[in-house]
Amino acid sequence: MGPHPAVAAIRLAVRRVLHDVLTDTTQNAAGAPLVLVACSGGADSMALASALAFEAPKLRIRAGGITVDHGLQDGSAFRAAEVVARLTALGLDPVGSVAVTVGREGGPEAAARDARYTALDAEADRHGAVAILLGHTRDDQAETVLLGLARGSGIRSLSGMAAVSGPTGRYRRPFLDLDRQTARKACLVQSLPVWDDPHNADPAYTRSRLRHEGLPALEKALGKGVVEALARTAQLSRDDADALDTWAAEADVTVRDEDGLLECAKLFALPPAVRRRVLRRAAITAGSPAGSLFARHVEEVDRLITGWRGQGAINLPGRVEARRQGGRLVIRQG
Amino acid sequence: MGPHPAVAAIRLAVRRVLHDVLTDTTQNAAGAPLVLVACSGGADSMALASALAFEAPKLRIRAGGITVDHGLQDGSAFRAAEVVARLTALGLDPVGSVAVTVGREGGPEAAARDARYTALDAEADRHGAVAILLGHTRDDQAETVLLGLARGSGIRSLSGMAAVSGPTGRYRRPFLDLDRQTARKACLVQSLPVWDDPHNADPAYTRSRLRHEGLPALEKALGKGVVEALARTAQLSRDDADALDTWAAEADVTVRDEDGLLECAKLFALPPAVRRRVLRRAAITAGSPAGSLFARHVEEVDRLITGWRGQGAINLPGRVEARRQGGRLVIRQG
Repeated sequence: MGPHPAVAAIRLAVRRVLHDVLTDTTQNAAGAPLVLVACSGGADSMALASALAFEAPKLRIRAGGITVDHGLQDGSAFRAAEVVARLTALGLDPVGSVAVTVGREGGPEAAARDARYTALDAEADRHGAVAILLGHTRDDQAETVLLGLARGSGIRSLSGMAAVSGPTGRYRRPFLDLDRQTARKACLVQSLPVWDDPHNADPAYTRSRLRHEGLPALEKALGKGVVEALARTAQLSRDDADALDTWAAEADVTVRDEDGLLECAKLFALPPAVRRRVLRRAAITAGSPAGSLFARHVEEVDRLITGWRGQGAINLPGRVEARRQGGRLVIRQG
Repeated sequence: MGPHPAVAAIRLAVRRVLHDVLTDTTQNAAGAPLVLVACSGGADSMALASALAFEAPKLRIRAGGITVDHGLQDGSAFRAAEVVARLTALGLDPVGSVAVTVGREGGPEAAARDARYTALDAEADRHGAVAILLGHTRDDQAETVLLGLARGSGIRSLSGMAAVSGPTGRYRRPFLDLDRQTARKACLVQSLPVWDDPHNADPAYTRSRLRHEGLPALEKALGKGVVEALARTAQLSRDDADALDTWAAEADVTVRDEDGLLECAKLFALPPAVRRRVLRRAAITAGSPAGSLFARHVEEVDRLITGWRGQGAINLPGRVEARRQGGRLVIRQG
């Protein structure tokens, strides 16, 4: 008799990503390559850890696990030690916990995320790991798309989390096509204890409100397929955004004069979607921080091209200004 | 003392669109050009009718109104007669009501919409109108984006309603940047009686559930700016989808051999977002109905290019099949 369908599903997802990791990366000459799982002790990442532990020996790779102690709740150090014990019990090695200090920049969720990835990167470097697996599910993806939708800043923010990310492509999300219920079921049938992070149910967090109120209400109105539709939207939007970024990069060199200045007439001839991306790139190159440069800023710069009526310089974040001058668009830091 | 801010806002929106209509269209030699408003008697379209009636004489155009009797509720003919009386009282001329028979194709909402636009088109032709104004607001737009999101079929379905649409661009939506509350307020302060369509509150309709439950829950989770963010997403998605369609049309001619067959190697070299659009176009040209051709169909055809392992022909809606044959992709009706 084979494993429970939920267990088969999580193992298949991990197997696929491991094959991909092993094809992608040069084998470590010093020994079998190491893959780490980032584990909070919750159902998603515990299921992931169990599947990694099961598949690793068959592929002759080493499997380890890291838990990050964000220090945001009483007893978090005890909790982290408990996760370390559970990962060890699964047969993972090396296993460790890292304590981080969460700042305040960008709000509590963004600050925790930044601290977590910095710590995971350092651990992967220290252990020479070829990949770090993350337990994000299709449900997390759907929530991320809705969070992006609420920013209203275009299709890049609808594209959710990538299956492969990080500067060297070291982060992998094998469960992005799997629902949360499957991960939970896989833990249950394998008798894996899981921890329900109280933050996940705390209505002070946007994502938690979305999970427990927003998304269920949307499903009630639109039908059960909403999570799947949102996840598919993420993938399609990502591909579309990538293609348009490529186009904008190519267009960029065709709309400049011999001094490298942007020519308004040539910008005007581009499709609006491409022109706005060229303008956004130019603003960022001039020193405007990508995170503070919103769609409305770019639209205002765009009106120097499409709705020119002698308006003055447009101020952009990072003390950058955009000005139309003799048929050229000059974007520079003041 | 000027008009109430809500009244000023609806008039400005109509003035803008009328200037645009008059620049776009040749003046009717037989007399002043005619603009019609489609009016259900609800707050949005009554506000629109009142603004059109106010602005028309100043621009020396004629303003008329049409109400469509869908025959779906008891007393709908009486209701239509009442709307005709109200439009006449506003000074619109010509004013008329058209009774339509709503079919069943595509569900009750789509069938009613199809019947309505067919009737409006016929009325516009009969009267020689240069434009038909529709009362859709930013809130309607936000709902349309969420309905598109639920289909999960990509950014075209996120692009909502266009400010200008119809084969000849005759449909205009002046209130697409205005919220429903403003239209309602404008009716109130002008003492215009409005009719609340019970269908709008009937939970049997998806849009109604979205309006009264889905969207409020989403606003509660994500904050008050959701409607605006969704409307902005619509505009950005529309521009992006247009640009990618243009790219796909250009790419189409570069990926064919001398016999006009699609070459797999050249398709493979395209960005995925562009390749999928080329494949979708080819399937539609071969006879697959656009409305039944889903993202998953196109993905399956795409795997003949990106994941070739000798798979057989892919069946598409409309008895179209896609098959890989000697380095070519053959898509044709069986």
